[in-house]
Amino acid sequence: MIIVLRANVTQPEIDHVLDRIKELGLKAHLSQGEHRTIIGVIGDEAKLQPQPLQAIPGVEQVLPIMKPFKLASREFNKKDTIVLVGKVKVGGGHMAMIAGPCAIEGREILDEIAGHVKKAGANILRGGAFKPRTSPYSFQGMGEDGLKILREVGDKHDMPVVTEVMDPRQIPLVEKYTDMFQLGARNMQNFDLLKEIGQTRKAVLLKRGMSATVKDMLMSAEYILAEGNPNLVLCERGVRSFEDSTRNMLDMSAVPNVKGLSHLPIIVDPSHATGRPDLIPAMACASVAAGADGVHIEVHSCPEKALSDGPQALLPLQYAAVMARIRALAKVMEKTF
Amino acid sequence: MIIVLRANVTQPEIDHVLDRIKELGLKAHLSQGEHRTIIGVIGDEAKLQPQPLQAIPGVEQVLPIMKPFKLASREFNKKDTIVLVGKVKVGGGHMAMIAGPCAIEGREILDEIAGHVKKAGANILRGGAFKPRTSPYSFQGMGEDGLKILREVGDKHDMPVVTEVMDPRQIPLVEKYTDMFQLGARNMQNFDLLKEIGQTRKAVLLKRGMSATVKDMLMSAEYILAEGNPNLVLCERGVRSFEDSTRNMLDMSAVPNVKGLSHLPIIVDPSHATGRPDLIPAMACASVAAGADGVHIEVHSCPEKALSDGPQALLPLQYAAVMARIRALAKVMEKTF
Amino acid sequence: MIIVLRANVTQPEIDHVLDRIKELGLKAHLSQGEHRTIIGVIGDEAKLQPQPLQAIPGVEQVLPIMKPFKLASREFNKKDTIVLVGKVKVGGGHMAMIAGPCAIEGREILDEIAGHVKKAGANILRGGAFKPRTSPYSFQGMGEDGLKILREVGDKHDMPVVTEVMDPRQIPLVEKYTDMFQLGARNMQNFDLLKEIGQTRKAVLLKRGMSATVKDMLMSAEYILAEGNPNLVLCERGVRSFEDSTRNMLDMSAVPNVKGLSHLPIIVDPSHATGRPDLIPAMACASVAAGADGVHIEVHSCPEKALSDGPQALLPLQYAAVMARIRALAKVMEKTF
Amino acid sequence: MIIVLRANVTQPEIDHVLDRIKELGLKAHLSQGEHRTIIGVIGDEAKLQPQPLQAIPGVEQVLPIMKPFKLASREFNKKDTIVLVGKVKVGGGHMAMIAGPCAIEGREILDEIAGHVKKAGANILRGGAFKPRTSPYSFQGMGEDGLKILREVGDKHDMPVVTEVMDPRQIPLVEKYTDMFQLGARNMQNFDLLKEIGQTRKAVLLKRGMSATVKDMLMSAEYILAEGNPNLVLCERGVRSFEDSTRNMLDMSAVPNVKGLSHLPIIVDPSHATGRPDLIPAMACASVAAGADGVHIEVHSCPEKALSDGPQALLPLQYAAVMARIRALAKVMEKTF
Repeated sequence: MIIVLRANVTQPEIDHVLDRIKELGLKAHLSQGEHRTIIGVIGDEAKLQPQPLQAIPGVEQVLPIMKPFKLASREFNKKDTIVLVGKVKVGGGHMAMIAGPCAIEGREILDEIAGHVKKAGANILRGGAFKPRTSPYSFQGMGEDGLKILREVGDKHDMPVVTEVMDPRQIPLVEKYTDMFQLGARNMQNFDLLKEIGQTRKAVLLKRGMSATVKDMLMSAEYILAEGNPNLVLCERGVRSFEDSTRNMLDMSAVPNVKGLSHLPIIVDPSHATGRPDLIPAMACASVAAGADGVHIEVHSCPEKALSDGPQALLPLQYAAVMARIRALAKVMEKTF
Repeated sequence: MIIVLRANVTQPEIDHVLDRIKELGLKAHLSQGEHRTIIGVIGDEAKLQPQPLQAIPGVEQVLPIMKPFKLASREFNKKDTIVLVGKVKVGGGHMAMIAGPCAIEGREILDEIAGHVKKAGANILRGGAFKPRTSPYSFQGMGEDGLKILREVGDKHDMPVVTEVMDPRQIPLVEKYTDMFQLGARNMQNFDLLKEIGQTRKAVLLKRGMSATVKDMLMSAEYILAEGNPNLVLCERGVRSFEDSTRNMLDMSAVPNVKGLSHLPIIVDPSHATGRPDLIPAMACASVAAGADGVHIEVHSCPEKALSDGPQALLPLQYAAVMARIRALAKVMEKTF
Repeated sequence: MIIVLRANVTQPEIDHVLDRIKELGLKAHLSQGEHRTIIGVIGDEAKLQPQPLQAIPGVEQVLPIMKPFKLASREFNKKDTIVLVGKVKVGGGHMAMIAGPCAIEGREILDEIAGHVKKAGANILRGGAFKPRTSPYSFQGMGEDGLKILREVGDKHDMPVVTEVMDPRQIPLVEKYTDMFQLGARNMQNFDLLKEIGQTRKAVLLKRGMSATVKDMLMSAEYILAEGNPNLVLCERGVRSFEDSTRNMLDMSAVPNVKGLSHLPIIVDPSHATGRPDLIPAMACASVAAGADGVHIEVHSCPEKALSDGPQALLPLQYAAVMARIRALAKVMEKTF
Repeated sequence: MIIVLRANVTQPEIDHVLDRIKELGLKAHLSQGEHRTIIGVIGDEAKLQPQPLQAIPGVEQVLPIMKPFKLASREFNKKDTIVLVGKVKVGGGHMAMIAGPCAIEGREILDEIAGHVKKAGANILRGGAFKPRTSPYSFQGMGEDGLKILREVGDKHDMPVVTEVMDPRQIPLVEKYTDMFQLGARNMQNFDLLKEIGQTRKAVLLKRGMSATVKDMLMSAEYILAEGNPNLVLCERGVRSFEDSTRNMLDMSAVPNVKGLSHLPIIVDPSHATGRPDLIPAMACASVAAGADGVHIEVHSCPEKALSDGPQALLPLQYAAVMARIRALAKVMEKTF
């Protein structure tokens, strides 16, 4: 960590900063420049990062040198992590092709959709039983009944299943019926939920928050890893921006960015990122070429009757067409699913 | 609601849309333009808003006419709502001057700070017992011990107290010790938390999410109101932006914007919005002149030793100086506290 | 266009709006709903769009139905436009592989770089002679001397050349020496420059502004097309966002988004979008899979000595590696270059 | 400047960096930490800032210590600059109250508006003769005829006048007729325009670009100051954001932020920032309480017939009401106009 002092800093102020560094068991290295005095701090930066050094009189800037996450970092683990979702591998060249409706609406319709996406190549089935809805007047999900249906349909089609958990009290229930927890964008910084999911050992799909930087997402990953659960897959799903013709802005560069900073797999969800079926296929293909470890797409056989997010769902036929192209691209990228 | 059909829409597609509208018990009003056919839907738009009309073949755009929130809207209640926090009125010309440290760190230090801010004119004491921290390695709050201290110190200085609740399971505990729940920015769309806080009758301070529009905030308010709790105060605390010299971007126009759309009081938190003590006083003054119903400022008597967010805290002396100016501005604005 | 009237609108106010519509030679279609009265306007919306209808008392909202651009729209031209840059085709399955240094720094170095990129597969050579620099103290470009070198080196390697024009007075000079004008992000709404470039017939590369929506970019394209120059290629190069680990945020979805709205070719510039050599290759590949009509990459044989934007340049070797993968992806996408 | 080296940096790489620093006539100060080696560079950082050090192998981060602007900085000039616009002082406690229509539309209407705003307390008259319009089909301004009218009307009401200049070739014309150049948001980084306006000695109103940080704005100011024109007033007018209920997001904290970083006056334009007459009064008042050196408001006596931006104009009566409140607030802030 580097501490830059103000132009007009006094000697007692400098001494006070040096004392604080010593108190923490670290060494200081003073360097007098032409315009500023700077202090390099030598030792475990992690001790220093939570300290309010910026608040000390005479301090102008505090510049951290190390990243604030550890277990999630590429330095901690040089090799790509491979996460098991049921029997499906994700990461290290293996792609998660997650598909299904936004919400579980009933046994028959889910069965029909699952049949379609499985045939097209999907290897994980999704469906929401607890739905975070902007409006209190919208459909809020089928709850446990939905989870049972998801489990049955997943088993019938031999696909592991993933569903969102919104509240720590739902963890035991969701854990019982599914193969992977989904942590939604709105809960990326719901720290109690992160910690308690970290205490399970089930696979987790952590979605990037709408206003989270890539580093914020890795800090949330760190919460889960720090509790002992290493089975973590990240998901880019778009961030808020001024562009008003798409629901969010898909930050495609997050894929190679995360791969440089972390050993964790990262997939892309073009459905929530764009909110537009006409853009999803191109963005799914681009994700594969960007190096993503999978693609998450919402599929519904009758979008106009879907109880949630119908307007952004692909039809089974459209999904099959995208998957055909993804297969060819994955080959070029030396990936399998 | 207005449905705009595609340029090349077919008659069967038009008929299908008209059928869906009739199914919902509403009337359609067809209007053939030169370039587009549009359908005006007459009846309760609320029935239509959750429907995935956008997904119907032949539909180009769906344009809602009504706002998606009701109980929170100015149309629902023309008069400004006045919320009681303990004995302190907020709204309708009465200002909430909330002050205190970011986190409760101990009895003595909180007592000292409370003495200072009370003297300067603050009328509600704040302090966090459960802290949402970006890093799992940072101080996470004192929990129930902190709540007890907050209650005692508040009582001693005759100030109602407000503290953050992060998890629905903390509601009974927080309800017991405090006068106002704070719902943090990261939890603005934690819908279970919103609902369960809506089931209490205690005052709530709902902070705007970092990527929430003003309408998103009002939709979250609607969750609380819909459960029957009308004691709601909103809080602008900055949103994420590309500007990198402040922590967030304070959207000052949210104050008159909310006042036009809603009857609920809205206060401003310049501490979290800017993250910079040198900018907080000017932003606190501006908030008052913008018409805010209060100002929320973090104060610490030794910011460099604060366990949380020290670098953004004002010193008691700085707080007293701001309050002196706020008093003069409030007079011009015909507000009291 | 649809005009939504306020809940409490009076009859004289309604009549006044109807009068304004008649004055403009258009027909009005009144529709009385339960909560709002709306007016559909029938006729050429273009006459109405510039009118300040929103300012008429009693008007709540004005909802345009048509897009504000015409010549740039897909409705105007169903077929993909193919632009000729020298002898190189761009659009309709033909990709522009633009490469070269940020700034022209001298004959020898440009010749060396051109040799490398040509060999790797680039078909258009880039290099800046007039440089828009954030700081007045940075290198501002070689001017006409640079243009001469660019022409010579382009001719030697049989590559058409593109360079930025920043000021209308530079148009004749740049027109003389190059095959394609580049309009930089900072000048996307420099309307005099757009108009005067529209009066030439040379190919134009129009870069998206840092805070421009996709529709804003198409409105700027409309300026050029309206003056009679149809030889226009658009370029996505990232927009401003809160993500602080990349220079800008590459909005990859702009590629299919533009392809739906317009007949114009669109390429991607991952160099300026990310500002990071470690992310450029993945983003270049993703662009091809997203359906882009080309990729623009900055290449320098000695980035650490580059006079402009060195830290974001790829080395020739890195460029060759990306191009090998792009070739394989382009085949899957049925594109050639 | 501080250079942080990669964890696995080699000795030859370190030596190479040290050589580059020596070549530039600066001294290096090596500091070996536990996890990273860092190099502090001592000497004139301005020499180093334009260098592509980030591109040198082995370099992980380059952290500048000094700000990239000088003449615009508070360190360069401790005292607030006071700019003369005609005989009106701006800065150092003197406020610019700029008002008038968006575009000059004719002699009579401008005269009428000028009479109203002068009476309400405005001290500078505005009106556009060259209009930057998003659409090529919108009114583009009256040009020189408009400038003549502006001059005449300004003289009649004894108000200095300000108008936008969009192209360097308009400078002599605009200089002849007006007292202050306005540089619009879209031209904040039109560097040729900045330089040539810097070569005049007339007052300049530089508006913040829609995606410019506060530091970007100060870098543009530096361009003008570096050419020798010190008569510069900055203007906050909102930036692009995801909030869709206002035209832009007014970054009110830019006012105290600029005041800390620079000696230049800064005013606020709530008209363009919000685009909504219902929000302009509150934002104008807030600007004064934030410490702004003036307020810029568009006023039109018949907004529904305005040729440009009518929907955001205040009526003369509304303007007079705001000005009454501003007067009272200015007194509290110890400012005059």
